[in-house]
Amino acid sequence: MAGYTTYIDLIRPLIAGKQIVSTAMKKEVDRVSAALDLALAGTACAIVSSGDPGVYAMAGLVLEMCRERDIVIAADGNGEDSNRLLIEVVPGIPALCAGASLLGAPLTHDFAAVSLSDLLTPWEVIQARLEAAATADFVIVIYNPKSRRRADHLTRAQQIILKHRGPDTPVGVVTGAMRDNQRVSLTRLGDLHEAEVDMQTTVFIGNSSTFNYDGFMVTPRGYAGKYDIKKS
Amino acid sequence: MAGYTTYIDLIRPLIAGKQIVSTAMKKEVDRVSAALDLALAGTACAIVSSGDPGVYAMAGLVLEMCRERDIVIAADGNGEDSNRLLIEVVPGIPALCAGASLLGAPLTHDFAAVSLSDLLTPWEVIQARLEAAATADFVIVIYNPKSRRRADHLTRAQQIILKHRGPDTPVGVVTGAMRDNQRVSLTRLGDLHEAEVDMQTTVFIGNSSTFNYDGFMVTPRGYAGKYDIKKS
Repeated sequence: MAGYTTYIDLIRPLIAGKQIVSTAMKKEVDRVSAALDLALAGTACAIVSSGDPGVYAMAGLVLEMCRERDIVIAADGNGEDSNRLLIEVVPGIPALCAGASLLGAPLTHDFAAVSLSDLLTPWEVIQARLEAAATADFVIVIYNPKSRRRADHLTRAQQIILKHRGPDTPVGVVTGAMRDNQRVSLTRLGDLHEAEVDMQTTVFIGNSSTFNYDGFMVTPRGYAGKYDIKKS
Repeated sequence: MAGYTTYIDLIRPLIAGKQIVSTAMKKEVDRVSAALDLALAGTACAIVSSGDPGVYAMAGLVLEMCRERDIVIAADGNGEDSNRLLIEVVPGIPALCAGASLLGAPLTHDFAAVSLSDLLTPWEVIQARLEAAATADFVIVIYNPKSRRRADHLTRAQQIILKHRGPDTPVGVVTGAMRDNQRVSLTRLGDLHEAEVDMQTTVFIGNSSTFNYDGFMVTPRGYAGKYDIKKS
């Protein structure tokens, strides 16, 4: 059982008696390395992420490191070749779904997820993705809106998107979805620079059809108003 | 309890004894309407979706219909005003996470979800989104790759993306994730027109860094090779 200390603490009652490798944030490589060493020595080992392990999370790094270390792997269930390390990725509810459910239904139409962290991605790439997503009227889900090093990423994203969408575009801001520190708020694109965000925040920027109704953020499914939903 | 017959059948053992409103596909409006009538009459009512109810699913239509019918609503938990209909959206594991977990880790970096269904969205909008997502090197998740009316949507999407990515770009095709009819396959962008897809299929198109390793589809997190993952 390996994981970032915060996540391990969240499930500690469930894993009593297990061997635990818990490491600080930014020690992802050490954590995966320790887990792989255990697994190669014959111990079944789980690596814990919050949300879904495949969305900006650890599943990718595990597989990357298997390749770098020339570890021969197979999907769990294909257990014929016992020389292969069996890997299973167990899906979960990603922050974009948890957050969306607290806001209403902002993701009922096409959306793009963009992380503003420029730790591993050049800012130019991030900027081009924001620009493309804004131009094509995707609902935009922003991960990592604020980093320790830089506080202005979200304001820069806001400026890019404002070139393509009006200041009244609905925006949802969710921090710590489903945790004790949960905070949910609705604002508008023009005011997004004033939103309180931290490293547990996900930001949802509506498309040109998204509306607020009674405190819920909703992206309608149809552009053409095809359904006669009033009469039904 | 209201839902598309297929989904109701999947959970029938869990809902024995409940009143059930089950309708055929494309009868979404009738289904939601019946559920709202029940709820307004004082019966607690659940509407069932597969995957996550907020990703291309029913949560949006419920809220749209509340607005159209002038039903005054509030988030469940804000129960102070008893004249409001209380609505709670319960998140789930969307097909994009279930499918990704079966492929490996294709969504470890920025991605865009695009539905190819032109039932409610003009094809020009869909095309512009595919173009934008391909240009900005998003991993692209395609929902509804095939409709009853038109079989060539996926081939048209393939042609658009091939303008920006090589034919060897890894592509994952997942049908019926986590169900009895589950099928998972890895192919390349140049061969995508030959893939078997149906209305339960989700297609994952890698970005310029996505690779296959031992049958797993992986999008690495870092562009700069910042981690020294070999040595660790």
